Amino acid sequence: MSESKKQSESAGTFAFEGLERIIHERSRLSILSSLAAHSEGLVFNDLKDFCALTDGNLSRQIQILQEAGLVEVWKGFHKKRPQTMVRFTPSGKKRFLEYIAVLEDVVSNAIATGKKAAPVKAPHFRGLSPA
Amino acid sequence: MSESKKQSESAGTFAFEGLERIIHERSRLSILSSLAAHSEGLVFNDLKDFCALTDGNLSRQIQILQEAGLVEVWKGFHKKRPQTMVRFTPSGKKRFLEYIAVLEDVVSNAIATGKKAAPVKAPHFRGLSPA
Repeated sequence: MSESKKQSESAGTFAFEGLERIIHERSRLSILSSLAAHSEGLVFNDLKDFCALTDGNLSRQIQILQEAGLVEVWKGFHKKRPQTMVRFTPSGKKRFLEYIAVLEDVVSNAIATGKKAAPVKAPHFRGLSPA
Repeated sequence: MSESKKQSESAGTFAFEGLERIIHERSRLSILSSLAAHSEGLVFNDLKDFCALTDGNLSRQIQILQEAGLVEVWKGFHKKRPQTMVRFTPSGKKRFLEYIAVLEDVVSNAIATGKKAAPVKAPHFRGLSPA
């Protein structure tokens, strides 16, 4: 352990194990954030607009989320037209909010340290040279 | 556009384009969060502990971050032992804080909607059936 390590920190402090890979991927994070703001569900085209995804990519990501138990997919009619509607499963909403709690830690850590604005220097190292 | 779409929302509302892929990947996010908390830099072994990464994976991710101009890598001696030290570049710190600002949006959106706790129902859809 180097002396640069602070007392309050320990192994894995910044490992962020709660950042579930299936949620963390950007396009899926977009989809889930859209659904979080629309608990009644969203039809495919609205979801596509909100997330700025292609049809193919959105379909693929929805399937992955469905297989992971995060969302449910419904087929039906809306304004006389066949539609696909997607919404959170109850456990999916819970897992998403757990993920968000970890993101909050990432943000609050970065903000706390950003405000310190310590000068960039390396007082503990001798003979440093760029690699 | 479906009527379920709110006035204040528009195309790309949840696209989160600022979630730079190179930063968003979880192990690299761990590394950069560790460095954000240690502006003087971190030696390889401390970084490995903080992020709970293997030697091989940490080396690989540091190289990716270095090639992307986010971090700089220094070789030197600390307590008479050869060490590798990693720290943010100034532009890397700036890009990381821009990324964090987008994460804040993700979090505040999810928290705002989580508090609404609206019941799960689909009033606008007729003839729905699970896909």
